[in-house]
Amino acid sequence: MVKKKTASPGKKIVLIGAGNVATHLGMALKKSGQDILQVYSRSKKSASDLANSLNAAYTCDLKQLDKHADIYVIAIKDDALAEIAKQIRFKSIVVHTSGSVEMTALKGCTSHYGVFYPLQSFSKARKIKLKNVPICIEASDKQTEKELIHLAEKISNRVIKIDSEKRQAIHLAAVFACNFSNHMYAIAEDILKTNHLPFQILQPLIKETAAKVEKNSPLKMQTGPAIRGDRNVMIKHISNLSEKKTSQAIYKLLSESIRENKN
Amino acid sequence: MVKKKTASPGKKIVLIGAGNVATHLGMALKKSGQDILQVYSRSKKSASDLANSLNAAYTCDLKQLDKHADIYVIAIKDDALAEIAKQIRFKSIVVHTSGSVEMTALKGCTSHYGVFYPLQSFSKARKIKLKNVPICIEASDKQTEKELIHLAEKISNRVIKIDSEKRQAIHLAAVFACNFSNHMYAIAEDILKTNHLPFQILQPLIKETAAKVEKNSPLKMQTGPAIRGDRNVMIKHISNLSEKKTSQAIYKLLSESIRENKN
Repeated sequence: MVKKKTASPGKKIVLIGAGNVATHLGMALKKSGQDILQVYSRSKKSASDLANSLNAAYTCDLKQLDKHADIYVIAIKDDALAEIAKQIRFKSIVVHTSGSVEMTALKGCTSHYGVFYPLQSFSKARKIKLKNVPICIEASDKQTEKELIHLAEKISNRVIKIDSEKRQAIHLAAVFACNFSNHMYAIAEDILKTNHLPFQILQPLIKETAAKVEKNSPLKMQTGPAIRGDRNVMIKHISNLSEKKTSQAIYKLLSESIRENKN
Repeated sequence: MVKKKTASPGKKIVLIGAGNVATHLGMALKKSGQDILQVYSRSKKSASDLANSLNAAYTCDLKQLDKHADIYVIAIKDDALAEIAKQIRFKSIVVHTSGSVEMTALKGCTSHYGVFYPLQSFSKARKIKLKNVPICIEASDKQTEKELIHLAEKISNRVIKIDSEKRQAIHLAAVFACNFSNHMYAIAEDILKTNHLPFQILQPLIKETAAKVEKNSPLKMQTGPAIRGDRNVMIKHISNLSEKKTSQAIYKLLSESIRENKN
């Protein structure tokens, strides 16, 4: 019997979760030629919506998970992960996509487990090019690691091996660089709104601030009254924030921190 | 006598200051057809360097300022502004470029004064397209306002009239959106460095976080453990920051502030 020569077939994947990460990963994996068998979500609407766009089956019952997948990808909230992990048991690979949960949380699910953590902030409404997004891989064993890296390289050019401890440091750094910098934008928006000014006026500044650190250390790019030690301006700013006590406290603490870090 | 028909001639400008703002503004004004007569700086090297690239004269002596300019642009540190303003007196227009100093600081210099505030963070090493940068104009009288708007429109598509009070609010908002978000990047860099990880890994995340708010309110774009109320992750993060007390205090305060703002 002569085997036909074929392109390497896609992996059979089950997505557990139908949120932002599951959606973006699912789309990218499908596009790269993988076969999404099934989507699980507690919510029937979420499961069927995502399943439809991936041409997959769906279920809201963990007991009905398809048993024939090569890889199960758990992309759900961190605090729900342990509970889900308890209820599934497979022979094939099980991974989670979390920045902060240890890989060993999946030890009970299978003997081949790992982490597949895309370092990006996903919103359903925004298209993201996963090609440039770092994907952090960790695995229970060499063979699993090889398979996860192979899969990750189908959707990203920046696949890196990262252990649980380092991944947690990355996740913490990401909270500052993404969640907290976004909160700085939100406070700026609030100040402008109080003064009947559009947030949009800050766009070129926000863009340039982010672009500056593409090739430079942010420590060296620091500008503003705090790093210059311009006390008169800072006193005026703090007084202007007298109606916004939390933002005022943030102003003081961050200005002190910038002064401490001055190199 | 028949006058030759010529294109509207450039304004004659003297730059007082040779730092980042003076450099970027000077370059853009020259490129737009204005005539930079002279550059003043206390430092001979700074004055002559910028003057050379603008094909202008230079001086380090305020008494030697060229008396024939149409507009004097004071682009120096906020806390040096009052001192300089005391020493100059002209009949033509005098403006400063500061976000936080009141326009009336120039009252003694001339009877035609104003503010020409480009809302951007300038570094000498980086080229900036001023075309997209908002320029905030304020003036002592209608004629001066008209002339300043006309000049600003030569270098930017986003010229807006903004009074001193609103300009100070914009400047305060800019400290959050630019200086403080950069400091968030710096703390992220510090966390990564401690864990022997490159800051560069966060690039796609930083870029996307800034890009998200181009068309969306940052309040609505907030993600991360604080807005989700993911206490387990936050407790772990706070404990991971035990060696970095100031960053730990920032983590707590910003997480509380994000929770407060939840809409």
